[in-house]
Amino acid sequence: MQLTRFSDLGLRILMRLGEASATDSPRMTVADLADAIEAPETHVAKIVSRLAGIGVVRSVRGRAGGVQLAESAPSLSVGRLLREMEPKTPVIDCSAPSPCPYLEGDCLLRHRLAAATEAFYRSLDDLHVADLIADASRPRDTPVSLGLPHTP
Amino acid sequence: MQLTRFSDLGLRILMRLGEASATDSPRMTVADLADAIEAPETHVAKIVSRLAGIGVVRSVRGRAGGVQLAESAPSLSVGRLLREMEPKTPVIDCSAPSPCPYLEGDCLLRHRLAAATEAFYRSLDDLHVADLIADASRPRDTPVSLGLPHTP
Repeated sequence: MQLTRFSDLGLRILMRLGEASATDSPRMTVADLADAIEAPETHVAKIVSRLAGIGVVRSVRGRAGGVQLAESAPSLSVGRLLREMEPKTPVIDCSAPSPCPYLEGDCLLRHRLAAATEAFYRSLDDLHVADLIADASRPRDTPVSLGLPHTP
Repeated sequence: MQLTRFSDLGLRILMRLGEASATDSPRMTVADLADAIEAPETHVAKIVSRLAGIGVVRSVRGRAGGVQLAESAPSLSVGRLLREMEPKTPVIDCSAPSPCPYLEGDCLLRHRLAAATEAFYRSLDDLHVADLIADASRPRDTPVSLGLPHTP
């Protein structure tokens, strides 16, 4: 099971902008973002445009312009974000290679897969962009305790 | 969000074999299956091999040989089947386009996406191959009531 690259990079962009938001330079250009996440600039521009449509980032024009997190971004849930970013198509393609006689229309499996997809998103409804930003901003060189006892 | 084509076609193969199991000819050749689901025979052969590994179909050699549903197939849950069929990789690729500084290791998002994936599968744990077969076998020309009141 895979999320689209579009959502994947969208999440990385939000985490990068989250880091920037804690500094004196909360705005980044699309070129800077593309460089930071090592993705093509045209692709990043499309994703930023989508994120702006969702209202989670905003673009500021002018010389000191760029993209920055919207004020409401931290409170957005990841479940909601992914529902907006992911295509609305079913997790299986009932129309290819040829229209499936089972998977189309009122097919039971199709309904259950849609419910399972909703369960996936719902599981992320209590995770917020603020949580991702906090996690992205914590020092990465600090070893994380896995709960294992220390060997003396 | 997308399941792999591998799982998608695997589900169609099981439904087709389920239909066949209710007839005098419960066995189908890989060529017949490929024809029925309009997929390349080499691909269908790989999927059948995986389904046999999971124990949901069995191959019978000889002149009247072919592939048929295993006896235990109807009781297999779709959640379990998809856990076996889908790759074990995360729903986002933390290593591409370059190793993500946020999404790797003990990243919060990675953990939560894994939990969401499990919620997806768990939602399908009470749906069984028998249910899919029953649904695939019912007459398709019967209009399904959507619970709307009839206009007199």
